Amino acid sequence: MNTQSNMYKMWLQYREMPNKINKETYGEIAVIGNSPIQESIKEELTRAFEQMYQWTPVFTENLNAQIVIAINDKLNDLLSKNHKDQVEHLLDEGYIIASENNQVIITGKSSVALLYGVFHFLKDLQIGKDIHTLNITNQPKNSLRMINQWDNLDGTIERGYSGNSIFYENGKIVKDKSRIKDYARYLASVGINAIAINNVNVWEEETFFITKKYLPEIKEIAQIFTSYGLKTYISINFASPIAIGGLHTADPMDEQVKEWWKKCVKEIYDYIPNFGGFLVKADSEHRPGPFTYNRDHKDGANMLAEALAPFGGKVIWRCFVYNCVQDWRDRSTDRARAAYDHFKPLDGLFHENVILQIKNGPMDFQVREPVSPLLGAMHQTNQMVEFQIAQEYTGQQIDLCYLIPQWKDVLSFDTYVKGEGSTIEKIVAGQIHPYRYSGIAAVSNIGNDENWTGNTLAQANLYGYGRLIWDPSLEAEEIACEWIALTFDSSKEIKNTVSSMLMDSLSIYENYTAPLGVGWMVTPHYHYGPNIDGYEYSRWGTYHFADRNGIGVDRTQATGTSYTSQYNEPNASIYEQLDTCPDELILFFHHVPYDYVLHSGKTIIQHIYDTHFLGYKQVEQLIKKWAMLENVIDVDTFRNVEERLQLQRANAKEWRDQINTYFYRKSGIPDQQKRTIY
Amino acid sequence: MNTQSNMYKMWLQYREMPNKINKETYGEIAVIGNSPIQESIKEELTRAFEQMYQWTPVFTENLNAQIVIAINDKLNDLLSKNHKDQVEHLLDEGYIIASENNQVIITGKSSVALLYGVFHFLKDLQIGKDIHTLNITNQPKNSLRMINQWDNLDGTIERGYSGNSIFYENGKIVKDKSRIKDYARYLASVGINAIAINNVNVWEEETFFITKKYLPEIKEIAQIFTSYGLKTYISINFASPIAIGGLHTADPMDEQVKEWWKKCVKEIYDYIPNFGGFLVKADSEHRPGPFTYNRDHKDGANMLAEALAPFGGKVIWRCFVYNCVQDWRDRSTDRARAAYDHFKPLDGLFHENVILQIKNGPMDFQVREPVSPLLGAMHQTNQMVEFQIAQEYTGQQIDLCYLIPQWKDVLSFDTYVKGEGSTIEKIVAGQIHPYRYSGIAAVSNIGNDENWTGNTLAQANLYGYGRLIWDPSLEAEEIACEWIALTFDSSKEIKNTVSSMLMDSLSIYENYTAPLGVGWMVTPHYHYGPNIDGYEYSRWGTYHFADRNGIGVDRTQATGTSYTSQYNEPNASIYEQLDTCPDELILFFHHVPYDYVLHSGKTIIQHIYDTHFLGYKQVEQLIKKWAMLENVIDVDTFRNVEERLQLQRANAKEWRDQINTYFYRKSGIPDQQKRTIY
Repeated sequence: MNTQSNMYKMWLQYREMPNKINKETYGEIAVIGNSPIQESIKEELTRAFEQMYQWTPVFTENLNAQIVIAINDKLNDLLSKNHKDQVEHLLDEGYIIASENNQVIITGKSSVALLYGVFHFLKDLQIGKDIHTLNITNQPKNSLRMINQWDNLDGTIERGYSGNSIFYENGKIVKDKSRIKDYARYLASVGINAIAINNVNVWEEETFFITKKYLPEIKEIAQIFTSYGLKTYISINFASPIAIGGLHTADPMDEQVKEWWKKCVKEIYDYIPNFGGFLVKADSEHRPGPFTYNRDHKDGANMLAEALAPFGGKVIWRCFVYNCVQDWRDRSTDRARAAYDHFKPLDGLFHENVILQIKNGPMDFQVREPVSPLLGAMHQTNQMVEFQIAQEYTGQQIDLCYLIPQWKDVLSFDTYVKGEGSTIEKIVAGQIHPYRYSGIAAVSNIGNDENWTGNTLAQANLYGYGRLIWDPSLEAEEIACEWIALTFDSSKEIKNTVSSMLMDSLSIYENYTAPLGVGWMVTPHYHYGPNIDGYEYSRWGTYHFADRNGIGVDRTQATGTSYTSQYNEPNASIYEQLDTCPDELILFFHHVPYDYVLHSGKTIIQHIYDTHFLGYKQVEQLIKKWAMLENVIDVDTFRNVEERLQLQRANAKEWRDQINTYFYRKSGIPDQQKRTIY
Repeated sequence: MNTQSNMYKMWLQYREMPNKINKETYGEIAVIGNSPIQESIKEELTRAFEQMYQWTPVFTENLNAQIVIAINDKLNDLLSKNHKDQVEHLLDEGYIIASENNQVIITGKSSVALLYGVFHFLKDLQIGKDIHTLNITNQPKNSLRMINQWDNLDGTIERGYSGNSIFYENGKIVKDKSRIKDYARYLASVGINAIAINNVNVWEEETFFITKKYLPEIKEIAQIFTSYGLKTYISINFASPIAIGGLHTADPMDEQVKEWWKKCVKEIYDYIPNFGGFLVKADSEHRPGPFTYNRDHKDGANMLAEALAPFGGKVIWRCFVYNCVQDWRDRSTDRARAAYDHFKPLDGLFHENVILQIKNGPMDFQVREPVSPLLGAMHQTNQMVEFQIAQEYTGQQIDLCYLIPQWKDVLSFDTYVKGEGSTIEKIVAGQIHPYRYSGIAAVSNIGNDENWTGNTLAQANLYGYGRLIWDPSLEAEEIACEWIALTFDSSKEIKNTVSSMLMDSLSIYENYTAPLGVGWMVTPHYHYGPNIDGYEYSRWGTYHFADRNGIGVDRTQATGTSYTSQYNEPNASIYEQLDTCPDELILFFHHVPYDYVLHSGKTIIQHIYDTHFLGYKQVEQLIKKWAMLENVIDVDTFRNVEERLQLQRANAKEWRDQINTYFYRKSGIPDQQKRTIY
């Protein structure tokens, strides 16, 4: 355990503390209960205390211990009336840390609440808080807090930028699952409570995950996650009844198909009694789905939901559905419209254990997109938003890009679906529509690199994701500082430098990449580095329509694809009108000439030049900032980030020069500042 | 043997003939000699006569037979004085087919001459010539007539469009070598006399081809080729001394390295006494080479040449050397200049068993390039030209593209290196400079598809390649008609239709792809289908520099890269001056505005629009023409070509629309005919 490198330990460093709490007083810890979660709690406390204080706690059931960790009904009268009331009002996952009569009491209504409380407790100790004054009440704002692994059985990870899978290698589930356990610890420590363990694109062999062939080993994985409070989900192949069931159809209305799935689900629950359910990508990017049988998404989802319902399982059905064989000549088809057009008419028709998983934007995790108009648009259908922690389009964990500010923007977006204040944050928390289930999911950014995330600073995105969806009111900078304090130490120098780097990084990345919300312009398939026309004549529906006069996609009702009409007022009008459309999204909604003047006072073309020259310079500044930490931060982390910043500089240079050259060649308008364009 | 399909049999169909020659008279054939080549002759005659005439010849050594096949010194006095003299003046590979006193005598000075004579004899019989009147004297114009296989041990073929390798599969040499033998037959039948059996990019395992690990099996392959008159070459890894020799260097001046190669070569010749030599891609596209040790190409090539010389082996050293990590911002570096700049200064410094293999153009097998100025520029260094039968940039055996006219253009190009008439044809034949060895090589287009070449009509390129380099004075249409007659039958309908399709195909392909010699504009890496900016901002040195005003690469001495200065006069001036530069190459040599008027009277932009609309229409015409053959041509071939023509139509449509749209968006100049541009 102690041979793990700092980078490996992420935000659970448990660095040795100068102000030790003493063994004489706190050496015995009461942990009441024997579930696997209680075992996890004991392990974590042992690990933490040994590392932070160099002594090993002894666990007892004696409620007189100075630290007591127990579900509230096992506490007898240790809690004050006030605290008792607080616990009564908590959700199942909520906890309190109370200092009562010199005792520290961590409690809640469930084992997992205790686990979350313990992680909070250890975090506070690590950052130097006084154990005698802890008084915390906390609970998650979202009920479903999920991670999606896009891991394949061959060990690769779709859109993985941190090595290979920690779950699979060479076509098999890994034998040594200790790294999966560590991953469970990290996820639990930030409150994640669900995980889909395989890629939403389910290939031939992974289709068998829901059978005896793999269930015994998946059960082992599920047990690990269970002991950290996470439910395990499996991504399924909608065509399984044909692919592995020997049926000639996967028609969701076919009785044999329904029966097949019911048997299949029963078998899964025989192995994994608290199995979470299925994550489904159907009729999307060539994956099979109900369309083959002239059925629709509700038919497909409900059929699976029926099979899962008796066991409390859920169907998480992805809404990333669009025409991926579009003809670029056809300007009437607008990929941005697709999710809304497909799903909105089905509102109210899904079973109550179906949840629609909707990407944050209408396109695909670009650095800048408007918020998906489907979010909140379905009043009677459970919804969750999908983020991407993996930096597919945002620098692939080479370039620094702290994503929390982007997700904050999404969560604070006001949809007006039920009047002002109908923010995404409230929608996915189930506060606007009475969703039975809702929450947030995200694509993981981890792999088997020593530091989990390729770029060590990308750990902040995983940490921040968990923290943010637990409590969306947290500020991005607050989360960054928390992560820095836990990962490095509490020196002001590191904190100021790293937090400013993180906080600046998203706008820097946006500065040197595709301008003003138009998106894409990346190398096809790989999605790293510039290729301005890379998707311009392709089937993917991701165009910018730049010509010698102007650029942008006309999505207005007046003259374009009417995508703006998918929003409620006043958003629809704000986006529809050139003069109210926010600068940063103008090319997403409008096709404008290069000399169009933004609210900023700059023309489109000068904005492009200025942001691209600036973005590159800002990367150079990041490099300088980081260099100041050379003898302050551990050498492995220093080199890791330093190397990536150099690659980022090369990438930013390509983006700067290709974008500027492309638009200069097209527009013929020179840079006002006469900087070098090729 | 008879189970082979028509497509498989290519141009050696040996269709049953209506006018049979009779067994009574010709049933005995004298084949004098017992070398493996004589065995091949007997096999081929047996196969042909059984299929064409339904009887099996008996072989004798009796010179009174009606058909006599023997080296001239074994003929006693069968030949007339006149024919005797003719044979005396032949090169070793030349043959005569003489009708003397009712005997048909096929003779020459070597066994392989007899083999070539027999293939000619059978060809003439197949196309219906009268056996009694054959009187032919023939010999090759080029001494080295080579095929390069770009086959990898894993079974893939670099730039292969006809299935996998017939030589290798799954990391091993194929056990059943019958298909290799058939390939040897086809190659010998058109006079190919050398073959490099593995990819010029020599990967890890293929590096061992020159060792005991593979030589026993390569010997088997070499024996097959030997029995059809082909010498076997191996592509080698210049870093072999390190990779497999246990040395710490591959420095060509290092004594240990030299010794290592000498031992290596000796061992090869122990297995394969008539081994041809090495084909080498060094210091090219990341392949190792002498540059690593501050040596140059002559040092590398000569070191290998010294090892091979005692055995009569040759080094074929490729000149495809350029900076493949170029910065697109740097307009002073011109990839077109690279081969000349690298090799011209080394003229006279190579050993006499080194031959430089130079691609026909300065770039890389584009549909239209000028001829490489390096060809003929080295007066004292053996040279050969390299063509590509594989249609890497010319439709990948999906699109129809008969390449003989392109190669004819190259061969007839007058370099003026020794005054007017210094054509490439004469240079590679060794008639301009006294090259010890010279000739022509080409990248093969075959794989393990049933019909060898993917598109059955692409067989014409392999056939035509052999025929053309044997005798460059043959016309492209003549070769096409010969191939059609042999492959299908002699019906006028097929001949007229297919020959017109073949003869039109190159200009059709050029019409709908990159315009006016500028090249590239293809999907990076794959090289099929349009991507106009695909290489524009990349490291490959293949730019078009299109902006809103114009397009093309300024390679003039006056204002550009001075590439034109690599040509002799008057070519240098012809290319240098806008008004004399041929239209079809204008964008290769000049950057011109879209409204520049070509010799054709059209502007650049209108030429682009017109040729692209035309090219697509011409593909539709090809489809119509082919449809007329539905009940005339065998059904397998018909469907094979029909399917590909449909794919070609889709490809031509993409090219047409992307090119037109791209240039319309950039130039803003409308099509005079107001056709649809997107």
